[in-house]
Amino acid sequence: MEEVNVHWYVEDVSAHSCEVAVAGLPGVGHVGKLVVDHLIRSLNAVKVAEITSTYFPPQMYLSEDGVLRFPRNEIYFAAASEDRPAMLFLAGDCQSVGPEGHYKLGEAYVKVFSLLGVHRIYTLGGYGVGRLVEHPRVLAGLSHVSLKEAVVEAGAVANGVEPVGGIIGAAGLLITYGRLSGMEGVALLGETSGYLVDPVSSTAVLDVLEKLIGFTADRTELSKLAEEMQADLSAITSSLQQNSADDLRYIG
Amino acid sequence: MEEVNVHWYVEDVSAHSCEVAVAGLPGVGHVGKLVVDHLIRSLNAVKVAEITSTYFPPQMYLSEDGVLRFPRNEIYFAAASEDRPAMLFLAGDCQSVGPEGHYKLGEAYVKVFSLLGVHRIYTLGGYGVGRLVEHPRVLAGLSHVSLKEAVVEAGAVANGVEPVGGIIGAAGLLITYGRLSGMEGVALLGETSGYLVDPVSSTAVLDVLEKLIGFTADRTELSKLAEEMQADLSAITSSLQQNSADDLRYIG
Amino acid sequence: MEEVNVHWYVEDVSAHSCEVAVAGLPGVGHVGKLVVDHLIRSLNAVKVAEITSTYFPPQMYLSEDGVLRFPRNEIYFAAASEDRPAMLFLAGDCQSVGPEGHYKLGEAYVKVFSLLGVHRIYTLGGYGVGRLVEHPRVLAGLSHVSLKEAVVEAGAVANGVEPVGGIIGAAGLLITYGRLSGMEGVALLGETSGYLVDPVSSTAVLDVLEKLIGFTADRTELSKLAEEMQADLSAITSSLQQNSADDLRYIG
Amino acid sequence: MEEVNVHWYVEDVSAHSCEVAVAGLPGVGHVGKLVVDHLIRSLNAVKVAEITSTYFPPQMYLSEDGVLRFPRNEIYFAAASEDRPAMLFLAGDCQSVGPEGHYKLGEAYVKVFSLLGVHRIYTLGGYGVGRLVEHPRVLAGLSHVSLKEAVVEAGAVANGVEPVGGIIGAAGLLITYGRLSGMEGVALLGETSGYLVDPVSSTAVLDVLEKLIGFTADRTELSKLAEEMQADLSAITSSLQQNSADDLRYIG
Repeated sequence: MEEVNVHWYVEDVSAHSCEVAVAGLPGVGHVGKLVVDHLIRSLNAVKVAEITSTYFPPQMYLSEDGVLRFPRNEIYFAAASEDRPAMLFLAGDCQSVGPEGHYKLGEAYVKVFSLLGVHRIYTLGGYGVGRLVEHPRVLAGLSHVSLKEAVVEAGAVANGVEPVGGIIGAAGLLITYGRLSGMEGVALLGETSGYLVDPVSSTAVLDVLEKLIGFTADRTELSKLAEEMQADLSAITSSLQQNSADDLRYIG
Repeated sequence: MEEVNVHWYVEDVSAHSCEVAVAGLPGVGHVGKLVVDHLIRSLNAVKVAEITSTYFPPQMYLSEDGVLRFPRNEIYFAAASEDRPAMLFLAGDCQSVGPEGHYKLGEAYVKVFSLLGVHRIYTLGGYGVGRLVEHPRVLAGLSHVSLKEAVVEAGAVANGVEPVGGIIGAAGLLITYGRLSGMEGVALLGETSGYLVDPVSSTAVLDVLEKLIGFTADRTELSKLAEEMQADLSAITSSLQQNSADDLRYIG
Repeated sequence: MEEVNVHWYVEDVSAHSCEVAVAGLPGVGHVGKLVVDHLIRSLNAVKVAEITSTYFPPQMYLSEDGVLRFPRNEIYFAAASEDRPAMLFLAGDCQSVGPEGHYKLGEAYVKVFSLLGVHRIYTLGGYGVGRLVEHPRVLAGLSHVSLKEAVVEAGAVANGVEPVGGIIGAAGLLITYGRLSGMEGVALLGETSGYLVDPVSSTAVLDVLEKLIGFTADRTELSKLAEEMQADLSAITSSLQQNSADDLRYIG
Repeated sequence: MEEVNVHWYVEDVSAHSCEVAVAGLPGVGHVGKLVVDHLIRSLNAVKVAEITSTYFPPQMYLSEDGVLRFPRNEIYFAAASEDRPAMLFLAGDCQSVGPEGHYKLGEAYVKVFSLLGVHRIYTLGGYGVGRLVEHPRVLAGLSHVSLKEAVVEAGAVANGVEPVGGIIGAAGLLITYGRLSGMEGVALLGETSGYLVDPVSSTAVLDVLEKLIGFTADRTELSKLAEEMQADLSAITSSLQQNSADDLRYIG
């Protein structure tokens, strides 16, 4: 096995060419992963390629049938429909263990996107703010300033200050490496506590993504997850308020 | 010294060919190591090869005669007998220090197994559950779904959910790399606390292994260790119950 | 992307040749970075080259226009004026993540300096002392003992004992690698607490640097930062004294 | 700079050939370093070679004249005298940062020893026992069992059990790599607390080394250090006893 390995699952790569790619790998709040995994399922996207790497953790994953497999990242293809352009998705189990692997893998993914004719990359992720966020904003990082107007119109924040500290991992590297290969790119990070898997933030990110690409995703599954989480947050909040009231009574 | 080095101890490799290999390297509870070290001794297996590696810790081991040696993994061969097929064993001092080494070493071991004609790999290990387990289950990961029936019949759990988080290190990598080289593989992880060397869990793993391979191992040494540990656990448990009773008396 | 990449921003490298280079990368108290960033701005230095590296953190930085970029180090050129020689500056976002990268990057920077005709390197940094320092001393490390007299005359300490433990990272490596390429070098470390970004220490370092090079820098911005920090320190100190007085009263 | 670099300081390597090499690099209690640094000074040994490496910490050292230099290991040569054979010494600032570097450096040192005609390597170090040791034993690890008798006769322990856990770093690797190049080797580890630089343990190690090589070293400096430390230990011990007595009084 090489440091980074691409296994193609389709014979005719050109038949899966696509202008738009959307990446959502595991990260803060699994915000990006939730969106992309959801889109892959709801659009019945087909697997185009699989990436394995010695930069991934040496942790073999268990499939539902009890079979072990290498940790992997995958590229899926959803053909165009009447009301939606064709799209590629980058999803997977993990990111690199160390810093060097992030660079190597980011570069490899852009090379694959290049072979598949991608002109625009959207990377989705979370931005941890250390507190519960009821109405998460979506913070954007761009490959070119020309994309700013559209991104802001779609509801994201592109103020050149947030996300403070920039963007760590694949969500950032795909944008910068993509630009070197002539691709436009937009990173969309949903605000999230950083403590919980966060479908509410994922929904906010999907809102912006839909407007930018021009399509409407089925949201059954994601909405259900988000409602459950909102209910949990309300329970937590009211419990905290109750505790606070109890405290006052105790003092009084 | 190369990153991974194989030193052959036999001239005629083909004379030590063998369909079945059993791996038990150090890991959680030393569950796999205890079984394989025990089998090597009780079957008088002979050393076929030794692996050294710059991925191993830079810690030289002391032999009984005061002589220092490199940390190593070893491959042993036990010839077939009337009631037992020939078997290879992978045993040793340690696993890789970092993630990359796990991949490199896993690949190297499978290459050696391939030279030795192995068709089936069993990897043995422990799965830490963070509490004392009186009757440990054995959780399985498979190379092929076709192995599931036999594995469950032999007493292991192969529910596609456990071990939660998959399998880290050689016990997992030998199964996935083995499959790439056309080998079947079964990983057997005995539940264990994760705090102690655990011969009880080792015994549970050996039970399953015996049924899968079709042989009966001498267990004198392993049983003695397991009995001692069961006695220790009983002592700890009754001491904890006593403490708990003391606490109640105190409150009462 | 290679491990270390140099992107030239000027066609005619020889037109930006320069005997003196001043390096101030992020480090303890950002002492060196504050000085060099300030000089680049106040002297309207122009960018000559940019260095990217897979040894840098995989963290993409956000520009003011919302555009993402690779983490980078940069080389700037300020042409000579009536009262100042031409100067090169090495500035940037970060240093290497791991130890090997420090060596590789240090070597690469000196190669670039060599192409640009540099004969003398000044590296600026901080030396953490674990307490607030009102009048920070500047501790020097030299490439050649022949530089000692001038350095001491300029106000620095070159006693061969301090900085205790030597100099970690680029501030030290540029001096030793520079010597291998025939360059003289002086590392100037301002004492600093190690807890805070420290413009007071930066000012002390700039004092020494000016005397060594023979120029007078505009200090508007740096002085303002330093005054603000001195005010903060006075506030902290008087608050600590007040607390201490409170403590005495309590005891008495 | 390569990963490991050897700079020769002598033109005629064969004139510095030597059967015996003694290594004492920094480690637990600096036990080995104290002995070897002392021998280099008291025997007026001359520098034969210097090793630098990107595996060393990126920390430039300050010389007494204020000049910075790379971290290094050094090889010194002491010519034979009437009552002493010629000896080589390996001394230095540091060992490798990571595990791989330990292997690479160990191999490189043995190659240099091989060029210099070495047949026997002594490596000196400390073995941390976590408590103050008044009369430290010296624990030995051997390249060949044939050395055991002489080592025990010289006063060391070679029981095949201690040092428990073997020997980490250069003190162990020089013995195992040396054997691969046909050299005999003895590692001598003095028991030490692990908390303090320990000249008492160094003296115990030197006692054994002298008997094995057959020479008597000047000990002025080392004895002075050891006496100072014994006095310190006595002070600490009596202070602890006083505290203990105070405790009793308090209770009584």
